Amino acid sequence: MQDLPLSLQHLIEQLARLPGIGSKTAQKMAYNLVEMSEREAVDIARAIVEMKKKLHLCSQCHYLTEEELCKFCSNARRNPKIICVVDTPRDLLAIERTREYRGLYHVLHGRISPLDGVRPQDLFIDSLVKRVEEGEVEEIILANSPTLEGEATAVYLSKLLQGKGPRITRIAHGVPVGGDLEFSDEITLLKAIEGRHTY
Amino acid sequence: MQDLPLSLQHLIEQLARLPGIGSKTAQKMAYNLVEMSEREAVDIARAIVEMKKKLHLCSQCHYLTEEELCKFCSNARRNPKIICVVDTPRDLLAIERTREYRGLYHVLHGRISPLDGVRPQDLFIDSLVKRVEEGEVEEIILANSPTLEGEATAVYLSKLLQGKGPRITRIAHGVPVGGDLEFSDEITLLKAIEGRHTY
Repeated sequence: MQDLPLSLQHLIEQLARLPGIGSKTAQKMAYNLVEMSEREAVDIARAIVEMKKKLHLCSQCHYLTEEELCKFCSNARRNPKIICVVDTPRDLLAIERTREYRGLYHVLHGRISPLDGVRPQDLFIDSLVKRVEEGEVEEIILANSPTLEGEATAVYLSKLLQGKGPRITRIAHGVPVGGDLEFSDEITLLKAIEGRHTY
Repeated sequence: MQDLPLSLQHLIEQLARLPGIGSKTAQKMAYNLVEMSEREAVDIARAIVEMKKKLHLCSQCHYLTEEELCKFCSNARRNPKIICVVDTPRDLLAIERTREYRGLYHVLHGRISPLDGVRPQDLFIDSLVKRVEEGEVEEIILANSPTLEGEATAVYLSKLLQGKGPRITRIAHGVPVGGDLEFSDEITLLKAIEGRHTY
């Protein structure tokens, strides 16, 4: 590093602050930026600044948007009586890709994880309770990740929302479609058997 | 992608223009930038712009610098009579890491590669010839990569510079130190035997 010009060292340090980008990858990226034309590199920088300026969270469901309400909350053809709770915006997109779900969402922006210092009050849970208490909601689908933290979050929410009106459901666990049964872990397989249904 | 706010889509497209960054990685990086504070994200953008503004090529050897001459060319304790020719700035850094080489460098910024449309005139070869013709140089070490293109470049340069005064040498091919002999390919092994020396 000490043989590099300062501005390049600084860029590598900055890029390495991105989660998942190690110092080798940061170096590679920095060199690619060095070799790009000034215009191309500045376009990338500008896209970061623009995104930060324009993007914020939907005031109702906390998905990403450039408006007051996101494209789902402001879509009159979506069913406002069903709310699907997800951990992150990327999880929302995964569900949207099924092209079947037509209700609204609620993005928690994280999972309860005492080990990482993430407590319930660090997530968008208050606003979910408020949406439920407004009375229009008939079902809350807990689509938290099937990880330890996601399960803990789902259990926490199910207890919190129980008795407030809407039906509380949890997405099914089971063997992934197209997956080979013999490679499924015991817990997934157990859940798949427990969750079996008649044809 | 169409479910993403425009500024985020645009950022993902821009990041995906970096060589080696696929659309999945670009998405991951963009989300990480979304989750960063505005200050952190803008710092990264600023580091790109700063680097582009300050960094240019050394007027003598074409390594990266923020001054007229790079830290090697402007170092009076380096031996200007030896020039080590490398394909890229990263190759220069690799040689520098040996902490043994005390001469100067010449960075070609590429390798001759007709298939990729890289011709000799696209590289910093003219300025190398000029440095040789100025008469002070006693040895040119061709440290081009041991790839097809690197070899072609080294052969081209050796013919071009032959008879102009300095001794033209090529770095040795052989089995890597610490490598297992049985895993070496035939050509490397052949080169290692050809290049054998007495103790």
